[in-house]
Amino acid sequence: MTASTPGGTAAPSGAPDGSGSTQRNDPRSTALLTDHYELTMLRAALHDGTAQRRCTFEVFARRLPEGRRYGVVAGTGRLLDAIEAFRFDEEVLGHLRERDVVDAATLDRLAGYRFGGDVDGYPEGEVFFPHSPLLTVTGTFAEAVVLETLVLSILNHDCAVAAAAARMVTAAGERPLIEMGSRRTHEDAALACSRAAYLAGFASTSNLEAGRRWGIPTAGTAAHAFTLLHDSERDAFAAQVAALGTGTTLLVDTYDITAGIATAVEVAGPRLGAVRIDSGDLAVLAVQARRQLDSLGATGTRIVVSGDLDEFALAALAAAPVDGYGVGTSLVVGSGAPTAGLVYKLVEVEGRPVAKRSTSKATQGGRKHAVRRHKPTGTATEEVLAVGAPVPAEPGDVALQVPLVRGGRRVPDLPDLHASRERLRRSLVSLPWDGLALSKGEAAVPTTVLPPVPAVAGGVR
Amino acid sequence: MTASTPGGTAAPSGAPDGSGSTQRNDPRSTALLTDHYELTMLRAALHDGTAQRRCTFEVFARRLPEGRRYGVVAGTGRLLDAIEAFRFDEEVLGHLRERDVVDAATLDRLAGYRFGGDVDGYPEGEVFFPHSPLLTVTGTFAEAVVLETLVLSILNHDCAVAAAAARMVTAAGERPLIEMGSRRTHEDAALACSRAAYLAGFASTSNLEAGRRWGIPTAGTAAHAFTLLHDSERDAFAAQVAALGTGTTLLVDTYDITAGIATAVEVAGPRLGAVRIDSGDLAVLAVQARRQLDSLGATGTRIVVSGDLDEFALAALAAAPVDGYGVGTSLVVGSGAPTAGLVYKLVEVEGRPVAKRSTSKATQGGRKHAVRRHKPTGTATEEVLAVGAPVPAEPGDVALQVPLVRGGRRVPDLPDLHASRERLRRSLVSLPWDGLALSKGEAAVPTTVLPPVPAVAGGVR
Repeated sequence: MTASTPGGTAAPSGAPDGSGSTQRNDPRSTALLTDHYELTMLRAALHDGTAQRRCTFEVFARRLPEGRRYGVVAGTGRLLDAIEAFRFDEEVLGHLRERDVVDAATLDRLAGYRFGGDVDGYPEGEVFFPHSPLLTVTGTFAEAVVLETLVLSILNHDCAVAAAAARMVTAAGERPLIEMGSRRTHEDAALACSRAAYLAGFASTSNLEAGRRWGIPTAGTAAHAFTLLHDSERDAFAAQVAALGTGTTLLVDTYDITAGIATAVEVAGPRLGAVRIDSGDLAVLAVQARRQLDSLGATGTRIVVSGDLDEFALAALAAAPVDGYGVGTSLVVGSGAPTAGLVYKLVEVEGRPVAKRSTSKATQGGRKHAVRRHKPTGTATEEVLAVGAPVPAEPGDVALQVPLVRGGRRVPDLPDLHASRERLRRSLVSLPWDGLALSKGEAAVPTTVLPPVPAVAGGVR
Repeated sequence: MTASTPGGTAAPSGAPDGSGSTQRNDPRSTALLTDHYELTMLRAALHDGTAQRRCTFEVFARRLPEGRRYGVVAGTGRLLDAIEAFRFDEEVLGHLRERDVVDAATLDRLAGYRFGGDVDGYPEGEVFFPHSPLLTVTGTFAEAVVLETLVLSILNHDCAVAAAAARMVTAAGERPLIEMGSRRTHEDAALACSRAAYLAGFASTSNLEAGRRWGIPTAGTAAHAFTLLHDSERDAFAAQVAALGTGTTLLVDTYDITAGIATAVEVAGPRLGAVRIDSGDLAVLAVQARRQLDSLGATGTRIVVSGDLDEFALAALAAAPVDGYGVGTSLVVGSGAPTAGLVYKLVEVEGRPVAKRSTSKATQGGRKHAVRRHKPTGTATEEVLAVGAPVPAEPGDVALQVPLVRGGRRVPDLPDLHASRERLRRSLVSLPWDGLALSKGEAAVPTTVLPPVPAVAGGVR
């Protein structure tokens, strides 16, 4: 599968094992990827009996990053894996005991911990807007509160990267994007970045483990070091072509680009797969390179560019004769918005709405239901939320929340990464045209919160 | 150890197992946390025999993030662990074979891979400047090139976070900082953030796994959800005090802060450990809270504030009656600089200097040696680099590079995380006073590159 064809960019293909969001690849316990206070809250709630109260927590963003027009749900598949791996083994319990983080009663409870509640959420790959209830976790306080840190870590990271990636995909148009940012972020975060980028429509990743874990096509040929290793650029190109074939991509900007392209075509012939330029004024260099390649008869040789590209640089290259892009840093740092601003808030206790009320960061109590309204043409017009009851249906409404976990068990046959990728593609098509603009603006569609039904308001003091 | 005293912020203490940078806690193979092209380069270099050439790679930053005055070396301990875990097991080899990433000869080579070269570097906790040779990796091309992605992932992430954290520690003065940003970044990156923050002088972290893995004190008591869970704020405070003692920290801004503080002192008495305020105008609220606490006789009750704090917000709170800070988002995203801009460049092949020369991103060939010059008072004045030979010694010079790995084996008795923390504290004290300013400026000391000795220049074409 995913033929990472020698020397070339791999063609996307499905994972043979139906991986993507449904396979658990890393069995390490995730239980300690958790803030200290989640366990001290549990300790105190067990002490006074409130730990058994039925609670609903919601994940949402108060706002989108400045000027962004939509968010992208990403990380759901990883999160469901991580919830399954949220178990306190003997080593972990021993550590908590030794540090006196919690008392004996809490340790007993944690020893048998297994999330047994329900999770609903927007499907991975769906877009979202301010206050969209992306994820709803229902269960006892004891079982739901301790998931807060892990839920937010995964969703805040992956949604941030996916949202940036989606803008880059829009900016790149039909040209394929290679994700190559692993070296600019934490080594494990890099995997999630590759996954989020692929979800958003990137063609491939440089990261081998992301390829193994999720069936994402991987790509890559050579760096400047390979040229510098050799006695001459010609020797380097000859070695690469001998090993990887003429379909490979030769990096031509180590010394002089014009000389590099001439040497590349001399060595590989006019059927050379591609040249890559990683520095300089890429728009100017691409035009020169195309002219030179054509003059050498290498009319089918593609031009791949990389080097500090973000969605704006990609858009600026739209008219240049470029055939593919490598994107690194700006992808893994969310192109200016490295975290998605999602929060995990308690909104119902034993069926009654609760909410923080003081100063700033006030919340809206009560469980939210969400639909997206559409014109008959299929264009989205509005996100409608209702508190405590479903949104009264109108033609063109699409329900946004689906069951993900029931009674602690993952719902079977959830979409895999490849299906989620297609969902995002369709969701973006459904937005009003200016929702895909790269410039700063308002959310692509407004969010309306219907009055609570029945009329309940605020939290209980 | 690390008494995470119930309800309070733990006092720092050393890890009993001498952990920190010297213990390997996660035995997973790190070999696939690697860009595809590292292995295709190896494949091609094995094919033409250049894979055995002796190479030197250097890690450095061309510039610091805009306006920053110093960088901080962080992640070295994690990196040395990761290099030891860089092995290709059967599963990994099978994946590479199946995907046709490399050929049979390369698979054979990878099966026996074990880094056998040398690594030198600035000690973890040392500061650095543009072009400082933070890390030098020497070995065959085959063994050194494949480490590029992993080296850069770890150092780019951890150095970025540590540099932001160091500025926050400066801004906080003597007041303790709690790192609580786990929920705003990837769940594994969060651990490295906690570690980098502690290295930089944070007092504690909310992250339990970081506490377990590296002996970092952990802290935390309760969130708004705990108050909302209860029928009243009073019930919540009473439950927390019953479970965690009067020394706990009560979160008083769920409903009305003045009422919350009154209730907190009524419930816990005037020996209440601390109150936390997580929203609103913290400077104003802290003054009001201090006055109210004092009027209630709770003169020893500390005030902890949190909520969107960065180094500038911390500096602005210097005159407010605050006793401690919780910092989250801005820490884990590097406070505007989420990656450190480090590169891993081939600078020598078989003893001759090599360098990229075209357009932008040109490099200086040759292995760099580095010292920091100081006045007799101990204040640093200059970073001096020499190419290909040691820097001629002057009084007050401090050599910056130390052996980390020799012949593939970690040098024994390297400083642990706690020692590195002390090193950074001393390094920052040695900077000229304006080097610690938060405002945008130039590097705290200039870097001088001495002419190559003997005179060699550029790469071999």
